Amino acid sequence: MPEAASLDKDDSLARFSAGFCLPEGMVYLDGNSLGASSTAVIDAVNAVLTEQWGADLISSWNKHDWIGMPVSVGERIAPLLGAAEGQVVSVDSISVNIFKLLNTALALRPGRLDIIAVEDDFPSDAYVAQGLAALLGAGRCRLRLVAQTQLEQALDSKTAVVMLSHVNYRSGERYDMQRLSAAAHDSGALILWDLAHSAGVMPLDLDAHHVDMAVGCGYKYLNGGPGAPGFVYLNRRHHGRVTQPLWGWLGHSEPFAFKTGYRGAEGVAQFQVGTPAVLSMAALNAALDVYGEASMKAIRTKSLALTAFALERMDALGILNEMTCITPSTPNSRGSQLSLVHPQAWGISQALIEANIIVDFRAPDVLRLGFAPLYNSFGDVEITAMTLADIVRDQRYLSVRFQQRPKVT
Amino acid sequence: MPEAASLDKDDSLARFSAGFCLPEGMVYLDGNSLGASSTAVIDAVNAVLTEQWGADLISSWNKHDWIGMPVSVGERIAPLLGAAEGQVVSVDSISVNIFKLLNTALALRPGRLDIIAVEDDFPSDAYVAQGLAALLGAGRCRLRLVAQTQLEQALDSKTAVVMLSHVNYRSGERYDMQRLSAAAHDSGALILWDLAHSAGVMPLDLDAHHVDMAVGCGYKYLNGGPGAPGFVYLNRRHHGRVTQPLWGWLGHSEPFAFKTGYRGAEGVAQFQVGTPAVLSMAALNAALDVYGEASMKAIRTKSLALTAFALERMDALGILNEMTCITPSTPNSRGSQLSLVHPQAWGISQALIEANIIVDFRAPDVLRLGFAPLYNSFGDVEITAMTLADIVRDQRYLSVRFQQRPKVT
Repeated sequence: MPEAASLDKDDSLARFSAGFCLPEGMVYLDGNSLGASSTAVIDAVNAVLTEQWGADLISSWNKHDWIGMPVSVGERIAPLLGAAEGQVVSVDSISVNIFKLLNTALALRPGRLDIIAVEDDFPSDAYVAQGLAALLGAGRCRLRLVAQTQLEQALDSKTAVVMLSHVNYRSGERYDMQRLSAAAHDSGALILWDLAHSAGVMPLDLDAHHVDMAVGCGYKYLNGGPGAPGFVYLNRRHHGRVTQPLWGWLGHSEPFAFKTGYRGAEGVAQFQVGTPAVLSMAALNAALDVYGEASMKAIRTKSLALTAFALERMDALGILNEMTCITPSTPNSRGSQLSLVHPQAWGISQALIEANIIVDFRAPDVLRLGFAPLYNSFGDVEITAMTLADIVRDQRYLSVRFQQRPKVT
Repeated sequence: MPEAASLDKDDSLARFSAGFCLPEGMVYLDGNSLGASSTAVIDAVNAVLTEQWGADLISSWNKHDWIGMPVSVGERIAPLLGAAEGQVVSVDSISVNIFKLLNTALALRPGRLDIIAVEDDFPSDAYVAQGLAALLGAGRCRLRLVAQTQLEQALDSKTAVVMLSHVNYRSGERYDMQRLSAAAHDSGALILWDLAHSAGVMPLDLDAHHVDMAVGCGYKYLNGGPGAPGFVYLNRRHHGRVTQPLWGWLGHSEPFAFKTGYRGAEGVAQFQVGTPAVLSMAALNAALDVYGEASMKAIRTKSLALTAFALERMDALGILNEMTCITPSTPNSRGSQLSLVHPQAWGISQALIEANIIVDFRAPDVLRLGFAPLYNSFGDVEITAMTLADIVRDQRYLSVRFQQRPKVT
């Protein structure tokens, strides 16, 4: 078994960690919640603050093409998704974007009213569908939440759209995009993928898999900063038939004509609504620079090596006798995280954080370790496994100081 | 007639301009499109980038209360609107927020389906209503656009909600909030005000005028930066009956319980949807600091003095013989801008900009001068009036270099 130091020595992506801002001594394994900041992002935001907004003020909308940012940032995200140009726009949040896309999906499948989603995917995605069903009424829209294992059987002639997380936020399981997209299509439905836990950390092939729609956020593996804008992908074959219901001036075909009647832009640009959050979008834009140098293939290779090494070390140290890993062991079915179940997972997460190993917890009993190949090392994994072994062996998690829970967990 | 220098000398708000970042020699009269940056904002955003995100990463959601920002920033905006606490949240954009509120309004007025708006208000607000009507169908929602002069006659037993801009973006006319709110109520309808051109530049009395709902943006007179988040006001008497249709985890009554079913927060907090854009929101938050020192009454007094002085000087210099001011002369009916009509308004705006006096243009023929009392001086007005007089007298606007129009005008 190779050692961490030797794996780090051979890591072709190791040099990228220097661009990220992480406190000395911290092992940060929560990039699947909030990616790390970087000097590129800090510099870019300051350029907007001082050289653009500060010096050019209103003229920046043209001079620095702020107005084009939702599209231009979308075009930079597109290759990471396996999307040809003209199909991605960066805008709003995942939830708001799902609302727009579900409506478009229903309009593209008249006579079908069901949105099918998996019951243990991220609940907010289902909330959006529930809200839409409540708005439109049972005759026009219905959400069916099914168990993951029942998904394919649930598809029928009433299914308008299947909405799935590509990587489950809780278990870290990666769904088979090709197979499930085909299954949706076989039933005559559309497929909508939530890429929150896969965009930026693995190659994606939306076009090749004939995916209809996708959403994702900028603040996890894309490192675009807290609350960075999300993005929308809409396959070109649906352009010209977009009927997203949030009609705002920036989705108009002539936003600055200030015409009385709305006429939406033909393609994915119609998913724009209000004025873009330029500061947040500039951060995301700068965070994308790294993908010009680091190939997505290398990122995925390292991601799988990190999770494999973590599993190996945790097994060797006896951790997996105490905690159950619910992330699939098959590499193809893994995202870039490992999820460990333990009744005291909360206390364990707090003990790790006290040791400056930043992980997170999902109620009631899941410890999540997220691996960001651009800044995590095999040494990080080694330290984490050894510390975790100590915590579990000593039952350090039982200490009262690890029991108080804050608002956000 | 007092001179600019003497007015500036007596200006109790003059000291605040030092906090704003404006290029040397520039007269910036476009704060009604994009407010100026400030050292407070630049410092605050950098603190988020380095001390919060950079040092504390994911824990910042609790430690720096990012998660509470939509509510805490909303509470800081509330006093500027004449709103008691618990009724304002900062979130999303004006357009997205109008969509949420119109649905809530329709649900609060069952049996009524009309949204009434004024045809020359900012068109994007009407687009949202059009989109909603298209989504819900003619039996549930209809947009009626009426002439401003016909507004009160148009209200009837079908009117669910009246949606108005407090200050018209084009003419600079300020509507009578008290009278029109009462008129809406007299017809049994609700009132929704768009405060884009009034929040931050004049006292508002939403509670006192029994306003039901309001929206506004953070990037004009509030100086929160390009694309700063908007805000929602919902009068407390409607809390507990919110039915906004964009159901997202942050509007859930227990956002971090990750429950399967959506249960919206009772009050205005339900208007949150996805993860807040922290960088943009931190900028807006810092921009609000100035209101701790500068009273809104003093701001309005100076605003009216600036527009009055501008009218006086433009009249004295003969400009008003060449250009027609469409902003009402009655102070109570003025926002904080003056709008001048001229067939060559585009060329005039470009000639002013060449002289480093930043103004804007609204098609087809309106020159807008926006006055921001926190950083504009009476000296700015004097320079503008004199330069404008020269441009108009010499017909400098006819130069070919002033004819090319960029994307955003």
